Amino acid sequence: MAITGAQFIGTKRSAEGTTSFQGINPVNNEKLIVEFKVATTAELEQAAQLAEEAFSAYSRTSAEDRARFLDQIADEILDLGDELLERCHQETALPLGRLTGERGRTMGQLKLFAQVLREGSWVDARIDLAMPERKPFPRADVRHMLRPLGPVAVFGASNFPLAFSVAGGDTASALAAGCPVVVKGHPAHPGTSELVASAIIEAAKKTGMPEGVFSLLQGAGHELGGNLVKHPLITAVGFTGSFRGGKALFDLANQREVPIPVYAEMGSTNPVFILPGALKERANIAEGLASSLTLGVGQFCTNPGIVLMEKGEASKSFMDRLVSAVESIEAGTMLTAGIKNAFERGIGNLINTGVGKVASGPAASTANAVQAQVFQTNYSALKNSPQLAEEVFGPSSVIVEAEAREEILDAARELEGHLTATVHATEEDLQNYQDLFAILERKVGRIIINGFPTGVEVCNAMVHGGPYPATTAPGTTSVGTNAIKRFARPVCYQDFPQSLLPAALKDNNPEDIWRLVNGAWTNEGI
Amino acid sequence: MAITGAQFIGTKRSAEGTTSFQGINPVNNEKLIVEFKVATTAELEQAAQLAEEAFSAYSRTSAEDRARFLDQIADEILDLGDELLERCHQETALPLGRLTGERGRTMGQLKLFAQVLREGSWVDARIDLAMPERKPFPRADVRHMLRPLGPVAVFGASNFPLAFSVAGGDTASALAAGCPVVVKGHPAHPGTSELVASAIIEAAKKTGMPEGVFSLLQGAGHELGGNLVKHPLITAVGFTGSFRGGKALFDLANQREVPIPVYAEMGSTNPVFILPGALKERANIAEGLASSLTLGVGQFCTNPGIVLMEKGEASKSFMDRLVSAVESIEAGTMLTAGIKNAFERGIGNLINTGVGKVASGPAASTANAVQAQVFQTNYSALKNSPQLAEEVFGPSSVIVEAEAREEILDAARELEGHLTATVHATEEDLQNYQDLFAILERKVGRIIINGFPTGVEVCNAMVHGGPYPATTAPGTTSVGTNAIKRFARPVCYQDFPQSLLPAALKDNNPEDIWRLVNGAWTNEGI
Repeated sequence: MAITGAQFIGTKRSAEGTTSFQGINPVNNEKLIVEFKVATTAELEQAAQLAEEAFSAYSRTSAEDRARFLDQIADEILDLGDELLERCHQETALPLGRLTGERGRTMGQLKLFAQVLREGSWVDARIDLAMPERKPFPRADVRHMLRPLGPVAVFGASNFPLAFSVAGGDTASALAAGCPVVVKGHPAHPGTSELVASAIIEAAKKTGMPEGVFSLLQGAGHELGGNLVKHPLITAVGFTGSFRGGKALFDLANQREVPIPVYAEMGSTNPVFILPGALKERANIAEGLASSLTLGVGQFCTNPGIVLMEKGEASKSFMDRLVSAVESIEAGTMLTAGIKNAFERGIGNLINTGVGKVASGPAASTANAVQAQVFQTNYSALKNSPQLAEEVFGPSSVIVEAEAREEILDAARELEGHLTATVHATEEDLQNYQDLFAILERKVGRIIINGFPTGVEVCNAMVHGGPYPATTAPGTTSVGTNAIKRFARPVCYQDFPQSLLPAALKDNNPEDIWRLVNGAWTNEGI
Repeated sequence: MAITGAQFIGTKRSAEGTTSFQGINPVNNEKLIVEFKVATTAELEQAAQLAEEAFSAYSRTSAEDRARFLDQIADEILDLGDELLERCHQETALPLGRLTGERGRTMGQLKLFAQVLREGSWVDARIDLAMPERKPFPRADVRHMLRPLGPVAVFGASNFPLAFSVAGGDTASALAAGCPVVVKGHPAHPGTSELVASAIIEAAKKTGMPEGVFSLLQGAGHELGGNLVKHPLITAVGFTGSFRGGKALFDLANQREVPIPVYAEMGSTNPVFILPGALKERANIAEGLASSLTLGVGQFCTNPGIVLMEKGEASKSFMDRLVSAVESIEAGTMLTAGIKNAFERGIGNLINTGVGKVASGPAASTANAVQAQVFQTNYSALKNSPQLAEEVFGPSSVIVEAEAREEILDAARELEGHLTATVHATEEDLQNYQDLFAILERKVGRIIINGFPTGVEVCNAMVHGGPYPATTAPGTTSVGTNAIKRFARPVCYQDFPQSLLPAALKDNNPEDIWRLVNGAWTNEGI
């Protein structure tokens, strides 16, 4: 597959732009071949119009048709073979092994949403049958299900160039819901984006999806993305990235004549609490933490950036082991020079607040490579400098020692919204710190006991979300099957004849789904 | 029960304010006894703090405890007896019969949410069991359920002084979800608000709910409500009222340091389509429409404000019958002088756009009474003056004649978001106008066939919502059992021991609810 540098406006390649940009190999800062055109306003207009035209047919495809489309996308991505992995490796410096795993996860997500469609109950079908004899007024026949919103804009993330990008979780869940998707590709991996887009387009053709069900617009800078969010035909936005980027899109979306939802996952510091018993008895938490905080060169949304524990003998020996573990972890190349510079600024800010550095990995010698860094401070310093709890995107963590249990709880109370919180605890710790969980439940989307926050399972029960500023939509998740509901809204059908009802709501339950009929869940027909 | 004019800050009466206002009888514009203090900033602060303090206990009450609380509120409202109905009648001019029915609906809503809690499956419990042997990585035990957001601000609506006010659907669903509620009472019925608040407080005491689970703040003007939405401890807002009011709160909420969701139901024009066969064969649609558009003096969110039909012999005789029906409907007193003035301005604007008035009810002679009004125009005028499709709150409707089927469809395509759309159709019409339904599905929350939009059933399948500008949250409903989900967010528990899991997620399923276990819906334990 030749990479062309053009947009996909539906199935058509388009390269009308007069400005362009190139992918850059972060290992040596050299430009990679192919100039990518920045999409023009006219191309954005065409993509949005095509998506809108596609909606009427696509929103009425059967669940099985959309499931086949998603399965086919997964197959086409696999068919891109090593070319995809190698281009992605060149653009991101992520190791081929990791990218092979991430490709599997991307395909797995698509196939999981295909399963969700085939099972079918996600539409929240509800039927309240008519009661013509009810006094004082008869009850009408009222039926309810989720229907797709309309064209969705998806912003690819830099840190998961496959699983959170062009065919990532946002695209998979929006397409599953019945929404056409216009992706704004991330400029850090434009060749990867084009290859994956070609797989989606190929799948759309092979499975007979309407023209315009998918488009890819490429660009560097903020203008294209802003214009996409402001486009009147766009009805929702999926985004994974920085707080600054997500908040800017959220504000633009709310200022539209017709505001639209923005599902922005903006990362977090993912606090880790190591309770006294665990700190004393489980020395290998130190090595686990060192691995978690350096995974993917620390470029995970769920990277553990702050660790809280009670000060004492046990914390001292924990620190010794953590220092030794971190000092043996080799430097890694970050995704872009911009991300590396931001990491160094973040580290500089930490040092300026006066926290002590206690460990660094081996020095880095190549472009954009960074060492892991661990800092240590105490609870009163954290209290005086709440910015210590802010995310530094990359392989760093701040260890905070508290004088007592109450300081640990206070630190938890003062947290803003995060994606995750992790608690290492013995049985006894769990008894002694029950109130910690009540606090954390309000602060995060996912609480992990005796594990690490990195590694987000794609499953039915996952919540990859959390209170603001972790996301702009705390009621939702961007990973796992519930992500599909972000792109649908309820519609109620009153006194419809059987022939006009969507299949999910017909009396005989032809899709064999679970429905709430007169207040009772059943998968039987009426 | 004596009405005192004080706030309820939790169970305590508080009257610190230095300014006050009175209820007004709209029939004669006379002030009703009792001066109501405008709540001060300090009182707002106390109510919010108490709500936050109540949250930790209230959010952990059992579903059965909250169900008993809701049932008790219903009983206490009934125990207020005729005093409530009479005060409400004085403040709103709504007939006692209507208010008796509305009281029943209010109690029914509370009891329905109690049932939802006892059934319990609303929490969307999901369990993906651990797979310790999975390769390349084991899967953790991951469990998911909805948990309450935190203190909720509710704004009472003027047009349903019981069912959408202090103990209305927003309060009932927020309390059911486990959220303390701070109500800003509507200044058009302050005595009603205080009486209903006293019922809630009484129920909270009798069922042992934590202090601060409910507060009522009274006030005229916008400052108090704005400050309530801006208060950092408030986590979500329920509102029913005007577009201007809802949009202002939505903007304030998005500009907070931590933005919060605003569930504003802002009314709509509720288009009615009378298709050719029905227009010809079912002459009594005219009388039905006249009744629907004048129900409650037109002060329903679902009032049918615009009617579309093809021009011809049948539309002519329909108009004749409609005119005659409307001319026999007596004038009714609107809720407030402000609402009456706004209605007259709206009617004036319609006349200024050049549409012809074809019918008025008998002239009104008392203060704030208005006649029903019907206007007639054609599709090209509507196209040139889209403001004809905007809501005029009150008993008026604009009948739009179209030249052909395609004009009807174009009119549907040009609609903005509405709560409802209604279609009168024969079997043959339904065949001929299938594409109309595909259009309407994107425009409204509820589509009604051969009925009228007024009369919103409180049931599991109801959607009282719709795309902006009908609401600020198109993915939700403010009526029906799904309204509870607005006040909750998903939390994920990874590798929790059984003892620490919420009951809904324990292996043995002690609450006997429906759960998604490893991808299959079941009400069995594990």
